[in-house]
Amino acid sequence: MSRNSAPLPLGSTIGILGGGQLGRMLALAAARLGMKTHIYCPDPLSPAFDVTPNKTVAAYEDEAALAAFAAAVDVITYEFENVPARTAAFLAGLKPLRPDARALAVAQDRLAEKAFLTVNRIAVAPFAAIPDLAALHAALDEIGVPAVLKTTRLGYDGKGQRLIRTAAEAADAYAALAPKPLVLEAFVPFEKEISVVVARNGSGETAAFDPAENVHREHILKTSTVPAAIGAKTARQAREVAEAIVGALDYAGVLGVEFFVLADGALLVNEIAPRVHNSGHWTEAVCVTDQFEQHVRAVLGWPLGDPTRLADVVMENQIGDEIEALPRTLGAGERPHAYGKAEVRPGRKMGHINRVRIRTPLP
Amino acid sequence: MSRNSAPLPLGSTIGILGGGQLGRMLALAAARLGMKTHIYCPDPLSPAFDVTPNKTVAAYEDEAALAAFAAAVDVITYEFENVPARTAAFLAGLKPLRPDARALAVAQDRLAEKAFLTVNRIAVAPFAAIPDLAALHAALDEIGVPAVLKTTRLGYDGKGQRLIRTAAEAADAYAALAPKPLVLEAFVPFEKEISVVVARNGSGETAAFDPAENVHREHILKTSTVPAAIGAKTARQAREVAEAIVGALDYAGVLGVEFFVLADGALLVNEIAPRVHNSGHWTEAVCVTDQFEQHVRAVLGWPLGDPTRLADVVMENQIGDEIEALPRTLGAGERPHAYGKAEVRPGRKMGHINRVRIRTPLP
Repeated sequence: MSRNSAPLPLGSTIGILGGGQLGRMLALAAARLGMKTHIYCPDPLSPAFDVTPNKTVAAYEDEAALAAFAAAVDVITYEFENVPARTAAFLAGLKPLRPDARALAVAQDRLAEKAFLTVNRIAVAPFAAIPDLAALHAALDEIGVPAVLKTTRLGYDGKGQRLIRTAAEAADAYAALAPKPLVLEAFVPFEKEISVVVARNGSGETAAFDPAENVHREHILKTSTVPAAIGAKTARQAREVAEAIVGALDYAGVLGVEFFVLADGALLVNEIAPRVHNSGHWTEAVCVTDQFEQHVRAVLGWPLGDPTRLADVVMENQIGDEIEALPRTLGAGERPHAYGKAEVRPGRKMGHINRVRIRTPLP
Repeated sequence: MSRNSAPLPLGSTIGILGGGQLGRMLALAAARLGMKTHIYCPDPLSPAFDVTPNKTVAAYEDEAALAAFAAAVDVITYEFENVPARTAAFLAGLKPLRPDARALAVAQDRLAEKAFLTVNRIAVAPFAAIPDLAALHAALDEIGVPAVLKTTRLGYDGKGQRLIRTAAEAADAYAALAPKPLVLEAFVPFEKEISVVVARNGSGETAAFDPAENVHREHILKTSTVPAAIGAKTARQAREVAEAIVGALDYAGVLGVEFFVLADGALLVNEIAPRVHNSGHWTEAVCVTDQFEQHVRAVLGWPLGDPTRLADVVMENQIGDEIEALPRTLGAGERPHAYGKAEVRPGRKMGHINRVRIRTPLP
């Protein structure tokens, strides 16, 4: 994004790649800012299609459909980091793509991501590239066990990784994971997982939300609690690291950074996501500006909003049929968000609830 | 609405009569709750059409179109109180209409409204029905001057009313206003105008937001400031009156109540609106639950949300071309909402900005 690009005017159309819940929530935020939206997704049942009249149902490799989409919009963003590199390059040649192709390239490859972080002196767990089984054995010698073997690409919600407890498990783990190449990471004895959602716009303004403390269940995020039970220094460092990352990427948009917190409060970056983030859904209920509006403001080249938090909150994902009780059981202090997915499936993220906790009522 | 009607399930479709900004904001709130929406509006350029794929462009008197609309939705609500009575009755025979036809009948006729309030011992300014010019002269003798002559129907934003300063102006004022009959109201020496947005659901739960202090410019709402500069007793009474009104109407949905505050803190109800209200747009930025979600929860028969306010706020309407500076001038603590209207016109409400004021930051 060029540093002095003019802010897009009201009534512009934002093209969004991906029609899941994140695309849907981005489209809702864009509408609040007076924007039109156009959703591009191969899945004809995409929940984001319910919040705009403008959609394209086509593969991400369909260049005719991509060209028509680009012609219909003023700026393009996305809800997921696995936008194919060729798709990103093709679209970026036609309309501004924000965040840009470099952010995608770094975030969609674990090895590129770790190299980027290391070059920028941001701490990550010890790791090694695993081009073949011999490299895995060598890396296990150096890093030790337990360690986690992961695909470099296309992993999410715990998919695409194997814990290796002894060197004897190496060959099976190597054979089980695809696509190759792989990466081996030391198994870090972390105490907590936290994340920071940070925004940056083309003028170089940055704004980080408070760190959230994340708990997973069956490898899927279950709750994000804010404030996280961490020291003030750790919280400040987490925000600073997140701001350093978007600065180093010359980034425009919102980005999620997941951290491991060690016993001494030290932080290691686990991974980054160049998009709005599940662990930032709490911002919707209690921040002056939420992550979705913040992303849209950044993508439009508008001034960023205030990320200040007004109350404590616990965000709880509604997985599978948990969502169905919501119309009856919803409490007064609960702010629900349901994604409008046509089919309830086990393990599927169907919505979330923000439970607002007011510590100090206004006078 | 029957008292024990079951809550509507996720994935239901809410039909909304009216495609302006209120319908648009209702549709956005409905989408957050996992609902589909269908907008019915005669204006093919309705801004609400940009936030859903489902629309009907037809007159409110087109019974074939209304029947098809009713068949496509699970519950019907509206963004404006001037839904024709015949339309309301027709739709109510096909699907639940919330708020119901009685609320519409009371709110769309100033005389019916004042009669309803008076019967329920809620104070209003002295008034008289004006079926003809002779009645106007008699009423001016009794009520005195200055007084305000108003149409009983279809008035908004200062349209459909005339200030009468001397009895000599009576005939001209009477001739100028249409449709007849009219109503004469005493000109009340009020100190402030405040409003309360209140919600009630079919289970009889009620929840009132804090009173907002409203300032008009050229008869159009310009700002709503919360908290209002009124005493605690006046604020409590305003909420109690609002809750009494929705109770007396056996109401389901959100309703706006405008009050005059007299020098001694006494309250007179100016008017009520059976819908989300411009003077409640501040709730979007600083309340646990905002008025749009609250209306949708009530219309769905879901539990109401918590109306608690988390910060101070000033809502400022963006009228005409004021909106155009927004992408450049927006401040960090400003939460904008632009309505996506295709054409900027003088005096047209194009959006609003919520300016959040944090008096006591969280520790």
